[in-house]
Amino acid sequence: MGIQDDNIIDLGQVANSDPNFLKKLKLTPAMYLGSCRFKLPNVDSKDPIYNTLFEQFKKYDIDAFFYIGGNDSMDTVDKLSAYAKQIESHIRFVGVPKTIDNYLCVTDHTPGFGSAAKYIASTTMEVIYDAQIYNSPSVTIIEVMGRDAGWLTAATSLARNEYCPGPDLIYLPEVPFNTEIFVNDLSRLLKEKTNIVVAVSEGIRDANGEYISASTGTLDNFGHAQLSGAGKTLEYLVKERLGVKVRSIEVNVLQRAAAHISSSTDIKESVALGKNGVKFAESGVTGAMVIVKRTSNEPYTVEYDYAKIHDIANEAKEVPQEWINSSHNWVTDEMIEYLKPLIQGEPKLEFESGLPVYVTR
Amino acid sequence: MGIQDDNIIDLGQVANSDPNFLKKLKLTPAMYLGSCRFKLPNVDSKDPIYNTLFEQFKKYDIDAFFYIGGNDSMDTVDKLSAYAKQIESHIRFVGVPKTIDNYLCVTDHTPGFGSAAKYIASTTMEVIYDAQIYNSPSVTIIEVMGRDAGWLTAATSLARNEYCPGPDLIYLPEVPFNTEIFVNDLSRLLKEKTNIVVAVSEGIRDANGEYISASTGTLDNFGHAQLSGAGKTLEYLVKERLGVKVRSIEVNVLQRAAAHISSSTDIKESVALGKNGVKFAESGVTGAMVIVKRTSNEPYTVEYDYAKIHDIANEAKEVPQEWINSSHNWVTDEMIEYLKPLIQGEPKLEFESGLPVYVTR
Repeated sequence: MGIQDDNIIDLGQVANSDPNFLKKLKLTPAMYLGSCRFKLPNVDSKDPIYNTLFEQFKKYDIDAFFYIGGNDSMDTVDKLSAYAKQIESHIRFVGVPKTIDNYLCVTDHTPGFGSAAKYIASTTMEVIYDAQIYNSPSVTIIEVMGRDAGWLTAATSLARNEYCPGPDLIYLPEVPFNTEIFVNDLSRLLKEKTNIVVAVSEGIRDANGEYISASTGTLDNFGHAQLSGAGKTLEYLVKERLGVKVRSIEVNVLQRAAAHISSSTDIKESVALGKNGVKFAESGVTGAMVIVKRTSNEPYTVEYDYAKIHDIANEAKEVPQEWINSSHNWVTDEMIEYLKPLIQGEPKLEFESGLPVYVTR
Repeated sequence: MGIQDDNIIDLGQVANSDPNFLKKLKLTPAMYLGSCRFKLPNVDSKDPIYNTLFEQFKKYDIDAFFYIGGNDSMDTVDKLSAYAKQIESHIRFVGVPKTIDNYLCVTDHTPGFGSAAKYIASTTMEVIYDAQIYNSPSVTIIEVMGRDAGWLTAATSLARNEYCPGPDLIYLPEVPFNTEIFVNDLSRLLKEKTNIVVAVSEGIRDANGEYISASTGTLDNFGHAQLSGAGKTLEYLVKERLGVKVRSIEVNVLQRAAAHISSSTDIKESVALGKNGVKFAESGVTGAMVIVKRTSNEPYTVEYDYAKIHDIANEAKEVPQEWINSSHNWVTDEMIEYLKPLIQGEPKLEFESGLPVYVTR
């Protein structure tokens, strides 16, 4: 944990030493500040960690503490602000959302998601172009991140436009995945077209709640069971059941790291959320997360506000059932209308010697 | 095979109907014309396919036949031009190189390679940024395409610059891969730094010529042996031998399809090679492939020429042994000097509704 280990960085100082720093930081993969996976114990545990942390806050003369991240990070904000209330500390604790998984409640969406969605939609389009080359039947399976939420996988739907057919089938983790129905979906489509492209979420599960990714009993060369991803598992299934050419593509960490293609809307909102967090903290807000509220879809407009952290921490926002089609193999127009504005605009990324320019510590 | 099935497209007509067509085609993933994997029989086989094809050429009043692709495609050009000589046909046959694998002989490099190298270098950089987040020991393995040639894997070296440490280890298929030395390389590095990033070619083999990717005896849930990629195989090995956090990333077809990031140098040269092919054919050249000759490295300059197809077809250009370091785990400065000019420049890609604009048939 940064503050606990005196692992502190004065961003103002860094920004002063390089006039382009903030501009470059905006388009750098989100790792500049590092990561903290420290889970705080219960507030009522009387664990000495709380005292240690508040001593550190005092040492660095901290009035407001902003914590950036997803669900687990908001749990930390929740606990720290609750403890601050107990000891009547004046320090304000504000959560700033950031996760490509988009699973945070109350906020319309989370920073990072729009850029990841743009990358996923572009990549899906390119994979579809690649698949169209073959003139014998083929199935291509794209496995997308998002844990138990299907938001990012749903973004593959944006690859359907006037010059790309888009994925043929999309499976989200919010509805049970049935392998028989999946095989039937494919068989039916293979009668109509040659190359089928399928998008699946890494977190799809069967009706019993078992992950599809865990159902393959593969052994490595040391005899240990290996877990295949959902895509690889379905690749084996398709090969066995349909006997067509099949391949699976795990987009893997590229979808959360590929800052070379990002959404201006996302970058702009990320900065605005941070600024609003500071503004709210200055006006006394604590125990809250700063949120985006969509006020209109066309034209797309948003407002920034804050919400009680306790209503957000440890709750996951799933894709609503009504945004998944009745066959459970695509998304509805409402989902597409929701996603579209988030991927708009291309920031001007600086290149040097042919490569994107990122900041480093 | 397009010409055999009368699967013909009049590009001049298409370009006339959309004034932006050619501009967009230049930045579209290379599948617009489809693909042909038809292997011609021996010229002396007296196979009727040759007569059929030359009847088709006559039917469409073809004077010059350009064939785009890699090694196998050049074999087709070789055979067709040899047959044309036998029957004293006036038709000229010219090969136009195009492969991300860069394994064609005589030409300095091949169109497609520079853009794929730029994508691979950028992606490697982003994966390294992602890996730096962890503060416990980790190994990340990136598996790169290129069949039995290490050119594209070598391009991960470009990710080492003043703001990115680059991959720690690079293994190419041109030298034998030894798992014990690999484990030792990692053990040594893990004493010096926390997060190790390794680039391996899909085609690495052991001293007996056996693919590393084939050495895992995994079984799927139907009891069938499955082939893991080189990256996945090494992931299991590292987990077993070193017990550190390890993950592998198979860049997969994205590296040949990701037209959203391409090299201006590559796009410019691709167009120039095509134009020169037409020019050479007009002047009577046949049984040849158009090639790029590097005349200077700094400043980077090239000339276009042609070379006898027979010296190119079915020969693979490997990475020279002297461009691989003596420890067989990185590349030399000569390799980096060779690669650098090929990824320079960013073409202005058009976006619509947040996605790259590509042409479609």
